[in-house]
Order: sequence, then C-alpha cells, then structure tokens
Amino acid sequence: MSQSKFLTGDKAGIEEFLDRFDVFLFDCDGKRLVFVTNNSTKSRADYKKKFDKLGIPAEVDEVFGSSYSAAVYIARILKLPAPKNKVFVMGESGIEQELQAEGVPYIGGTDPALRRDIEPEDFTNIANGSMLDPDVAIVLSGLDFHMNYLKTAIGFQYLQRGAQYLATNIDSTLPQAHSFFPGAGASGAGLEKAIGRTPVSFGKPSQAMMDAIEGKFKLDRGRTCMIGDRLNTDIQFGIDGKLGGTLAVLTGVSKKEEFLAEGAKTVPSAYVNAISDLLG
Amino acid sequence: MSQSKFLTGDKAGIEEFLDRFDVFLFDCDGKRLVFVTNNSTKSRADYKKKFDKLGIPAEVDEVFGSSYSAAVYIARILKLPAPKNKVFVMGESGIEQELQAEGVPYIGGTDPALRRDIEPEDFTNIANGSMLDPDVAIVLSGLDFHMNYLKTAIGFQYLQRGAQYLATNIDSTLPQAHSFFPGAGASGAGLEKAIGRTPVSFGKPSQAMMDAIEGKFKLDRGRTCMIGDRLNTDIQFGIDGKLGGTLAVLTGVSKKEEFLAEGAKTVPSAYVNAISDLLG
Repeated sequence: MSQSKFLTGDKAGIEEFLDRFDVFLFDCDGKRLVFVTNNSTKSRADYKKKFDKLGIPAEVDEVFGSSYSAAVYIARILKLPAPKNKVFVMGESGIEQELQAEGVPYIGGTDPALRRDIEPEDFTNIANGSMLDPDVAIVLSGLDFHMNYLKTAIGFQYLQRGAQYLATNIDSTLPQAHSFFPGAGASGAGLEKAIGRTPVSFGKPSQAMMDAIEGKFKLDRGRTCMIGDRLNTDIQFGIDGKLGGTLAVLTGVSKKEEFLAEGAKTVPSAYVNAISDLLG
Repeated sequence: MSQSKFLTGDKAGIEEFLDRFDVFLFDCDGKRLVFVTNNSTKSRADYKKKFDKLGIPAEVDEVFGSSYSAAVYIARILKLPAPKNKVFVMGESGIEQELQAEGVPYIGGTDPALRRDIEPEDFTNIANGSMLDPDVAIVLSGLDFHMNYLKTAIGFQYLQRGAQYLATNIDSTLPQAHSFFPGAGASGAGLEKAIGRTPVSFGKPSQAMMDAIEGKFKLDRGRTCMIGDRLNTDIQFGIDGKLGGTLAVLTGVSKKEEFLAEGAKTVPSAYVNAISDLLG
C-alpha cells in the first residue's frame, strides 16, 4: 500500500500534485471539474441553484448526484417497457425531479398521502394489494427525512411481489450541524432488514457512477483526481475507479489517523487540512 | 443432526411426545405453560386482557414478553444509579408499561411531541444537546409503528454520546394479514445502521429470556418443550436453551421444507400442521 502525502503548506508538492491531473471530480480549480454527490435529496438543478448562491460557477451538467445516476440507470439501462415501469420512491424531491427529467413514472416520494401513521386497515390493504399500484416494478430508496412505517411496509410489499430493489446511495450517516445524523442507508435500513438483502446502489463508491461520469465526460482516468472528505465513499470511489490520484480533505467525516494507521484499507494519494490549501 | 418427527394424525406419537415434558413454554395444554412472545408493543397486562377475551386461562405471570425481559434486565441487572438511569424508548406502549412496572424512568416512546417531521432547527438542537435529556443512559428499541427520522436522529445522538444500546427484539418481519410487514429489527434498523453496531437484544432466541424464565419458574430444562411457528426465533430458542424438545407448528412463518432440507440449521424435534393436532 502506498503512503499518503501531506500537502498543507507544501507549495511545491501541491503544484506537482495538481499538475498530474486534467480533471478534478470535485474541486474548486480552474480545470475541468465535476461535482459528485451522494445526497439524493437534491436534484442537479437544486445544486446548480445552490452553487449560484455561493458564487461558484457550475453548470447542471457538471453535477453528478446519486439521484441522477439512479434515474439514468432506470431510464437508459433498465428501460422497462411501459406501463409496468413505475418506481415507488422512498425519498425526497431530488429523486422525483431526476426521474421526471428522465421520463420515468413514479409514485410515493413526497406524496403527502403517505406521510401519516399506519392504520389497522392498511395492513389488510397492503397485504391484499388493493393499496398497491400494479405497475410498480422498482423500489428506489434514498435519504428520506419523512421515513415512516407505512412507506416501509408498502416498499417491502412491492419487493415481496418481485420489484427490483435500488438505492441512490447507502451512506450510514449524514454530517450535519457538526455532528452525525442518519444517512440514506439508515433511513432505508428498515426496508433492507425486512427483505434481507442489499439494494443495488448508485452513490460513491459504486462504480456505476464512475462509469456514467466517464461516459459523459470522456475523461482520462489516469489524469483524473477524486477529491473528497470521506474515505469510505469519496476516496474509495477514486481508488476503485483506478483514477490517477485521490486527495483527502480533512475538514469532513474522516480523520487522518484512519488512513495513516498500519494496514488501513483506504489510503488517499495525498491529503490537506482544507480545500483552501490548494488555492493561491 | 437429528430428524424431525411429523406428528399430525399420529395419536400414539403425540402422546409419547407430550409425556416427555412437564412444562410447555407455549402451548394450550393443561400442564404448566408459559407464553413467550417477542412482540414488544404489548405489555404482559395487555396479553392477559387478550387471553381473557379469547377465553384462554392465563395469569400475567405466565406471560413472558420481550418488553418485560428488557425492563427486568434494566431494573434488576444493570441497576444504574438515579438520576442517570433514564431510558429513551423507540417503541410502543408495551415497553413503557413494563418499564413503569419495574420503576425505570423513561422518555420518548409514545410521546406525541416526537411524532412529527424533523425541522431544520432540530438538527442544531439535537447536535448541541439542547433537545436531549442529560439523564438518558440507555436507548431501548422495539417495534415502532410510529418510527420516524426525528426519533432515529435523537436515539443516534444518545448512542454517539455513550448511551447503552438495547433492543427488545430484532425480528426482521412481523407476520400480519397473511403477509409480512417490517418487524422490530426493521423499525430499529435505521438506528443500528447509523451507529454501526448491533444492540443487546432480549427476544427469542436470546438466552437472556430463557435464563429469566428458568429463574422465575424453576423449570427442569430437560422436561421443558418449546412450541412455536418460527424456526429462527422459537425453535432456535429451545435448541440453544438445551430444552428436552422443540415442536414446530406449521401455521406460521416457517415451512417444513426449511428444516427437512439437507444441512438445515434449525431442526425441531417434531412438527405438526396445527396446534389443534395436539388436542383431543
């Protein structure tokens, strides 16, 4: 296993590292960059708006989100014939927007009719199918701040009846407010536990996302660098994708002790304390 | 591995099998019997009422539920000194009733204040602790038909701050309306996924429950039989507890093909199609 180089304050080292790459999958550099996110609650258009507000120049096409990845997979790879091609969404509007943009029919998601407690008659109507849509062929799970027993029971029933099981991503936690909250993998864990198998997942480190990015941008993997703050998603994504380099930023979830330790599983090529260390 | 004997219609076989036991952990026989349930949503008193309605003679003391098991463990084994001995409950009133009966303070549970969507300010107030009770030392998770992101986030924060992690039971599914719904293991799976470790669990097949039952009833394990319809909980519970026998009833979750198969993991001593096969 190669060692990880500490670049903060090392101007020559930074220059040498940056020069090795044409594409930065996530960076604030002037070269080609692609923003890659596992957050399924926002669509690419939502991110574009967020970047505009922050004064970061970015186009919708430069954002790759796990919702977008999942929608593209469903629309262009699975290509299920209508009408039996509906998606039951367990997640927020980011997923709905991306499915809509790809022309994929869906139910569930932010539907207010499902944001309620389960009632005794629901058990019967879910079990006998009268509450189900017979055209649902896919259950797509993502981060859902409105997760509940009713939606989980319905999703579980679709899976028991043979629907395909997909997830935008399966991150166990969500960094928020300087602490950790349940991530997409947690809000969807009830479904996974009930059915007893894991979903096909599209977020980092899944290489389905890398393949889609490569296909779209025709990038040279050897001259592409993945920059991120999470070892088990961002950095692993770059390593599994055989990119030219990976750069860990220590402002996020992962600590340097994790990859400097003997026998560490996921070791970035280099690391900095903050993304600003790469500027100026 | 011994073979499983099919008893339906075999009158002599039934008599011979029943004669081997003094205690039936779950049965409708005249000998000593104990009702053992993993369902944490009902208290022992709730079950007594249910049995009364069904005309089944039973005393509260003859019911052993996973909520009761957990409450006894917390009150009599853990015995945390007040005031830092509060339980954050993620479940229904069965858990609350049993904790109350054992004098254990708790919050959460059926509190209507937590049956709502998470709001942006909650992230801050959970992360900085202002929404938390500093006396909570235990998170106890059970089947929760009102599971949501807010409760999962609060439970996760208590665990991150060092609370002990207990579960009444971890059944993945709940048989209901001739189908399957998410069980306690599923409604609590978000918490388990977020924290990345499994809880100490008290339901079948956990032997914590068997030990408690043995202690209470002074039973002779060799002359005790576990009767149930679920291989991975009921029958495994009896096998792990080295009981004299286990009897599978085929009206429930498990099918005989599962234990008649070559190399089956959990094989009951005998099986019948219905519990009524043992009567008359």
